[in-house]
Amino acid sequence: MPFTISKPLRFGDCDLTGIAYHPAYLSMLVDVNEAMFASFGVTWKEIMFDRRMGLPTLSMNILFTKPAVYGDVLTFNVHVRKVGRASLELETVVTVGADVIWTIQQKIVLTSLDTHRSTPWPDDIRAGLERYLEPAADKKVI
Amino acid sequence: MPFTISKPLRFGDCDLTGIAYHPAYLSMLVDVNEAMFASFGVTWKEIMFDRRMGLPTLSMNILFTKPAVYGDVLTFNVHVRKVGRASLELETVVTVGADVIWTIQQKIVLTSLDTHRSTPWPDDIRAGLERYLEPAADKKVI
Amino acid sequence: MPFTISKPLRFGDCDLTGIAYHPAYLSMLVDVNEAMFASFGVTWKEIMFDRRMGLPTLSMNILFTKPAVYGDVLTFNVHVRKVGRASLELETVVTVGADVIWTIQQKIVLTSLDTHRSTPWPDDIRAGLERYLEPAADKKVI
Amino acid sequence: MPFTISKPLRFGDCDLTGIAYHPAYLSMLVDVNEAMFASFGVTWKEIMFDRRMGLPTLSMNILFTKPAVYGDVLTFNVHVRKVGRASLELETVVTVGADVIWTIQQKIVLTSLDTHRSTPWPDDIRAGLERYLEPAADKKVI
Repeated sequence: MPFTISKPLRFGDCDLTGIAYHPAYLSMLVDVNEAMFASFGVTWKEIMFDRRMGLPTLSMNILFTKPAVYGDVLTFNVHVRKVGRASLELETVVTVGADVIWTIQQKIVLTSLDTHRSTPWPDDIRAGLERYLEPAADKKVI
Repeated sequence: MPFTISKPLRFGDCDLTGIAYHPAYLSMLVDVNEAMFASFGVTWKEIMFDRRMGLPTLSMNILFTKPAVYGDVLTFNVHVRKVGRASLELETVVTVGADVIWTIQQKIVLTSLDTHRSTPWPDDIRAGLERYLEPAADKKVI
Repeated sequence: MPFTISKPLRFGDCDLTGIAYHPAYLSMLVDVNEAMFASFGVTWKEIMFDRRMGLPTLSMNILFTKPAVYGDVLTFNVHVRKVGRASLELETVVTVGADVIWTIQQKIVLTSLDTHRSTPWPDDIRAGLERYLEPAADKKVI
Repeated sequence: MPFTISKPLRFGDCDLTGIAYHPAYLSMLVDVNEAMFASFGVTWKEIMFDRRMGLPTLSMNILFTKPAVYGDVLTFNVHVRKVGRASLELETVVTVGADVIWTIQQKIVLTSLDTHRSTPWPDDIRAGLERYLEPAADKKVI
């Protein structure tokens, strides 16, 4: 089962041609990523401030299929494709009604904020992420 | 020859772990894309308001190689990989000093703001884009 | 009764010193303003696209009392202080728990997107705004 | 003499009605504030990271006089109205050509990032700020 959350496209997310400004999509995605962790009880605030870990993104492959316009409600369906030692591969399909608007494959890594090196997922976070695990044999995240 | 422009990583571009916030990178890239068009004398304002055309992004493949921190000066080297009938493929290598920080392959399409369909590049814009044309036989933009 | 809505301070709303980035506060406020109109059944999308009206801000007086940090839940209490012919005066008190974090007095004007001149509030919007009307005899919005 | 700097209104700074999005103005102002400090040789990065000090804003009074549109070049004229023990009062007049677009009075305070209390301006920063000092007897920054 994917992690699923809906968000409206806000006034400030649109550009002057009336469609979504793509950096605003990425900002929405950061919120979605954050909400997925919170859904299993580990906030990014705790990860960053208490555990002194960061979650930098290594890669993102994005396909914009249809434009979204002001007022559209976007549903983010986040599929966990792989939980590595210290890495995480996500594939998110963003829909408006029945239409796919954009899709993104992300690779994230867990790092120590002190050493700036990758660090293995703590057991509780790994267990949380694996709730959403759905490997896609035929899909490859760069 | 690539189109080249440098921009400092601003205070507001950084997140609370002290590195660049990735949506801010994309916002910087929009400015860089805009500046490349202006470099050959066709502003986006003219394209959008006078010619009634838009420049939506179809795809972006991004690789984050090293983090950038507040105060770093980022140099964007934009290579035009292909100018299609109505499409444009760009590959941008972003450096701080001698280090590659991130790279992005983008595919953009020219559309009519009235019909919302793709429309061929006008000759003056095509000629401007082709100044920076450097096909990469071995590289593929999705 | 004020219009009241709560919003968490997101990761992307914080600066590298760990507190809220003030332009992010203003972006949250735009969402709050938009939500107040939606609460009485008139969306900004309808105002802008169907009725061809805009809602530019004329003035904002802001007092930042305490910093908010990542993860704080901000409650916006919006008091309508005056509904003029074509203008609107709002006073918003933003709290985290029992603490006032910041306050803002805003003056907004309704304009025609075609003539760019002020235009009187339509009756349905005026009625909606007046639901939240609480004149403050002793308070003056510039 | 004010500190003066010009910045174009970027594509991403405009909303879907075609004028500047006010949170984008505030983000531009942060850059202008930062540039004023850099003009006398003290970067915010040094203040924040080496000296462990922050520069939170206490108040902002903003008057929007005319809308700016995509492509306008905004000139920020920053007048230092007062340098207190640990505070700074600025008045910035933003123009496009001969027109005043918006004005802002800001009060900023220097704080310790460790104690979160106000801390006196170091001599070198005070000297730098005083280069731009132009008290306005008849103007009051809240």
